[in-house]
Amino acid sequence: MRKRDFPVDDVRRFLEPGPIVLVSSAWKGKTNIMTMGWHMVMGESPSLVGCFIWDQNHSFEMIRKSRECVINVPTVDLAKTVVGIGNTSGADIDKFATFALTAIPGKKVSAPRIAECHANFECRLADSSLINRYSLFVFEVVKGYARTTPTFPKTLHYRGDGLFMIAGPTVSRYRKGFKAEMLRA
Amino acid sequence: MRKRDFPVDDVRRFLEPGPIVLVSSAWKGKTNIMTMGWHMVMGESPSLVGCFIWDQNHSFEMIRKSRECVINVPTVDLAKTVVGIGNTSGADIDKFATFALTAIPGKKVSAPRIAECHANFECRLADSSLINRYSLFVFEVVKGYARTTPTFPKTLHYRGDGLFMIAGPTVSRYRKGFKAEMLRA
Repeated sequence: MRKRDFPVDDVRRFLEPGPIVLVSSAWKGKTNIMTMGWHMVMGESPSLVGCFIWDQNHSFEMIRKSRECVINVPTVDLAKTVVGIGNTSGADIDKFATFALTAIPGKKVSAPRIAECHANFECRLADSSLINRYSLFVFEVVKGYARTTPTFPKTLHYRGDGLFMIAGPTVSRYRKGFKAEMLRA
Repeated sequence: MRKRDFPVDDVRRFLEPGPIVLVSSAWKGKTNIMTMGWHMVMGESPSLVGCFIWDQNHSFEMIRKSRECVINVPTVDLAKTVVGIGNTSGADIDKFATFALTAIPGKKVSAPRIAECHANFECRLADSSLINRYSLFVFEVVKGYARTTPTFPKTLHYRGDGLFMIAGPTVSRYRKGFKAEMLRA
């Protein structure tokens, strides 16, 4: 599946609809992947994303210390993998190996991106000051990639309790006089 | 459409999938409504939601001063209204009147909730310290309401540039051994 570079300022195209994502990290020669449902776009330029990473996750210290991660956007064909990754710990297993996922070296970060995901966003920790209070990591997206097709992937959106909403169709409400920038927040 | 009280600790059921929401507020005898796409669940108990509210929005000062709002979850039948609310300013019009929406007085906050939305979450500002730096309001949800049917509403999920993803079906991945709590973040 071919991917193209994706502009970091347009990350909202994939993240604002609220998909569950896979966060990959690397630290001291080991890699890991966690599932994450609590995240939000916090800015376009610089491209900021706020992520809630629980301190009980094995990834927590890896990301805090390396100050990097990749946010990967999986699609419905990976549902079983997404659940499996969420139900296991990197303390026990190598998640890339266990779930037969392909790690591609990051271009701007040392964390690997997941080839099988629709989009990948390489991130650097921009602000660590909210980690203790809110488990909130504020990342800057420094490099993006997205598959050339489909334009709008069937992402998974978590509701808690094992329930996932699958993304339906994307429709355009663009028309004369539409002020898209007013909807940014 | 009948609504029931909805437990505040379960707000993620509706907000974690990432719908665009309508934020209603009241200040000095006036009400307002804004669209919001940048938000995230930040805790379950207390029930915390982080919201990016741009300082150029008319609602910004109303919410900052009243320290309250209601987060309302609209469905696809309100798409035109959602766009209309996002493309107008409360400085110029009364949004409840203009868009023929019904304001119901809040039970725990003075901000009104929108009867036509599937779910409503009354919020109090829990932390104002990130407003200046990130336009980030951390709210505690103090009272919730949701329609009794359908269980999973067809919400709208914004992608920017006038593009909305419409929520598809919700599927269960719950099974023996599934550790739902590990997916919370």
